[in-house]
Amino acid sequence: MSQAAEKPHERLAAHLAGPMQAVNDLIRARMASQHAPRIPEVTQHLVEAGGKRLRPMLTLAAAELCGYTGPYHVHLAATVEFIHTATLLHDDVVDESEKRRGRPTANLLWDNKSSVLVGDYLFSRSFQLMVETGNLRVLDILANASATIAEGEVLQLTAAQDLRTDEAVYLQVVRGKTAALFSAATEVGGVIAGAPEAQVKALFDYGDALGIAFQIVDDLLDYQGVSGATGKNIGDDFRERKLTLPLIKAVAKADAEERAFWSRTIEAGDQRDGDLAQAIDLLHKHGALKAAQQDALAYAAKARAALKALPAHPLTEMLEALAGFVVSRIR
Amino acid sequence: MSQAAEKPHERLAAHLAGPMQAVNDLIRARMASQHAPRIPEVTQHLVEAGGKRLRPMLTLAAAELCGYTGPYHVHLAATVEFIHTATLLHDDVVDESEKRRGRPTANLLWDNKSSVLVGDYLFSRSFQLMVETGNLRVLDILANASATIAEGEVLQLTAAQDLRTDEAVYLQVVRGKTAALFSAATEVGGVIAGAPEAQVKALFDYGDALGIAFQIVDDLLDYQGVSGATGKNIGDDFRERKLTLPLIKAVAKADAEERAFWSRTIEAGDQRDGDLAQAIDLLHKHGALKAAQQDALAYAAKARAALKALPAHPLTEMLEALAGFVVSRIR
Repeated sequence: MSQAAEKPHERLAAHLAGPMQAVNDLIRARMASQHAPRIPEVTQHLVEAGGKRLRPMLTLAAAELCGYTGPYHVHLAATVEFIHTATLLHDDVVDESEKRRGRPTANLLWDNKSSVLVGDYLFSRSFQLMVETGNLRVLDILANASATIAEGEVLQLTAAQDLRTDEAVYLQVVRGKTAALFSAATEVGGVIAGAPEAQVKALFDYGDALGIAFQIVDDLLDYQGVSGATGKNIGDDFRERKLTLPLIKAVAKADAEERAFWSRTIEAGDQRDGDLAQAIDLLHKHGALKAAQQDALAYAAKARAALKALPAHPLTEMLEALAGFVVSRIR
Repeated sequence: MSQAAEKPHERLAAHLAGPMQAVNDLIRARMASQHAPRIPEVTQHLVEAGGKRLRPMLTLAAAELCGYTGPYHVHLAATVEFIHTATLLHDDVVDESEKRRGRPTANLLWDNKSSVLVGDYLFSRSFQLMVETGNLRVLDILANASATIAEGEVLQLTAAQDLRTDEAVYLQVVRGKTAALFSAATEVGGVIAGAPEAQVKALFDYGDALGIAFQIVDDLLDYQGVSGATGKNIGDDFRERKLTLPLIKAVAKADAEERAFWSRTIEAGDQRDGDLAQAIDLLHKHGALKAAQQDALAYAAKARAALKALPAHPLTEMLEALAGFVVSRIR
């Protein structure tokens, strides 16, 4: 396959193959536990599930394109992946999920207890890894990101089932569940490289906008995607009564009869056969999917614009292509 | 009441009233959340439940008796209490507890989801607080303690219901669930004060031995205590099929018939009316409660011995009295 035909995250993976190998080795070494055999069982299940390792690649890319030559971008990339994995374990407990990336979730294979405690373990391990960098500013960034993530998750919990949830609350939830870790991943890459403040800010802005675009697309695919492609089931968010962007936009335009439908299915949780199809019809009727798609494209454009402050570098081009690719998943 | 008649933790609280006020203010300020109202609801429930705030007092005491005059022992004390509170929230989910300190638990009042996510939030907040101290060594100590805590919790999960659990595994579990945070609490107090290494080590040893003694007593009270005094129900550990020290000692001396009893009640989880009473009879028969009590006394003595390396100071005397008090809870 020619390089141009490869997907941007595959080009990133190829370019960063060396340090990513070091990241994977570090992840494997630190996911182990001397005493508790349940820990490597659960973590190995997660590691084997793979995923694109997008977040650690963002850290490595940011550090390298800012000229970093030291060893600690590897620690930070592993840190970011550990935080991500810990939140996935806890998310699956909270959402009572049964599938993740097309495989049974840890809470299903073992139990909720193991998912809660192994998540705590991975979070602690991430913390040890970042302390090893000896860089207080990256610690500050990652501590703040962790708090934003947790706060966003709680906010999502209380915003679910509540038709008053608006786009501003949605954005806070999305920053918590996705964008805070994306922006921390890129920002700490710049910070560890000692990049000028304008570049550090650009990296933050890129990660923030990319994360928001990514999450909006994810929320769109929940109504438009194909189960095999995402490893999720169509309509999961509807069944879990989550107020994602398409739904918020449709609720804002609902007439009295439609409002009663949303109130019954989302607020009261009384869902019947055919309700998901009707919900999707309403999303189309009000152009809610189209409008959410436009928002995703706008955030992707914002991400690309932020990159203009960064040095010309093959990785900068790949990050630009990545922003386009993220939104290309929308049909 | 004369000072001599007060309990040691009350004398500590009186001596440390000034900085403890600052700790409580900091805890209240940082337990809040700008965006997610569920967070202050849950955290306020926990703050009101009170508790003796033993861990933050250990940090304040260690720092002061080593001559510290800066502001960061307050941050570290709040950090330690946040980590403790976060683990309580997750523990109650894992143990499916309904009561804590005589009050309904958060997982019962709200739900498991809130307990998991608010626990994550408090853990992130603890992390922000310790980063503010700017001291990499305390970050290292607290990161390691967090990993030991999480690992111990997972180990406890897999060791439960397993009659092969021996005293060595029990000790690892206890270090995780209690002693690691006690020893980190005292150690970081010495480190932030810039105390000589011998004193830092003595503070660690004191916290470690005190924590082990404390947990053994807690496990004894689960069979011997009064529900009102501990806020726990007698026999909770038996019903949850936990291999605590008294049980491990009794199982080690069990004859074939007794082994069948333990196998049915603990391994198979088939518990009937009268089983708890029979379990307690077996603990008495083999002197298991007495032997566990001796172990607790030995750890308390070890804690007191460690204090000899520390400066003569009213707080050093109070810590010595505290070690005695912890084991005085045993009948």
